[in-house]
Amino acid sequence: MNTHKLHCKTMVAIGDGDYSFGPGVARLLKGIERYGSLKKAAEAMHMSYSKAWTVIKNAESIWGFSLLHRHVGGAHGGSSSLTTAGKAVVAKYEELRQVVIATAEKEFNTLFCERELDALRQLSMEEDIE
Amino acid sequence: MNTHKLHCKTMVAIGDGDYSFGPGVARLLKGIERYGSLKKAAEAMHMSYSKAWTVIKNAESIWGFSLLHRHVGGAHGGSSSLTTAGKAVVAKYEELRQVVIATAEKEFNTLFCERELDALRQLSMEEDIE
Repeated sequence: MNTHKLHCKTMVAIGDGDYSFGPGVARLLKGIERYGSLKKAAEAMHMSYSKAWTVIKNAESIWGFSLLHRHVGGAHGGSSSLTTAGKAVVAKYEELRQVVIATAEKEFNTLFCERELDALRQLSMEEDIE
Repeated sequence: MNTHKLHCKTMVAIGDGDYSFGPGVARLLKGIERYGSLKKAAEAMHMSYSKAWTVIKNAESIWGFSLLHRHVGGAHGGSSSLTTAGKAVVAKYEELRQVVIATAEKEFNTLFCERELDALRQLSMEEDIE
């Protein structure tokens, strides 16, 4: 018998058939907001700078507008920040994700509660005896 | 500007920390119900027989009970069918998945409707001009 607690996992992505905007891009964009730098955000995810650029470019192609402002040069070798539309996309995606997670948790806890699992185990034991 | 229609994709899985019960296992189990055979269900998914066995074994370890009846021998070299508990798990997982998909679609259509996307595009153009 399984003694680990079961849990429910969900993944939400928005796509246009070619590319997907999912948890990875959202995390990268939130990292850019936090560090003010695409390079640092990529490093925090153990992602190469060139890969991070590709992820941003593909995400921008989905939405059809810029997600990043690039500030070239300066004392620290340039910085990046999210555009207002970029921030809005991240916030909306996060809202979508939270609603989906909450619904999945609620439904999972009803459908697969301990009583239901016990009933299935009981059913299984009865069938084994037959 | 992106001319493809955006859509929302979701994935739901149930896990115990070691293994996951997600769309792949559910599809394999539904294939077994359909074909009456693990071998045929695996073939339909271009999955090797040994891989399919591992998938089933891991799924059974999550739930702690048998999902399959194995009927050895016979004219067609044996067959498989789902246990009553196995059928219930597939039905419950499918119910969970449908609720999550419906919620995600509804929320996506509100948060990312054409009007909202137009507003983001407008925002982006205004920021580009500044």
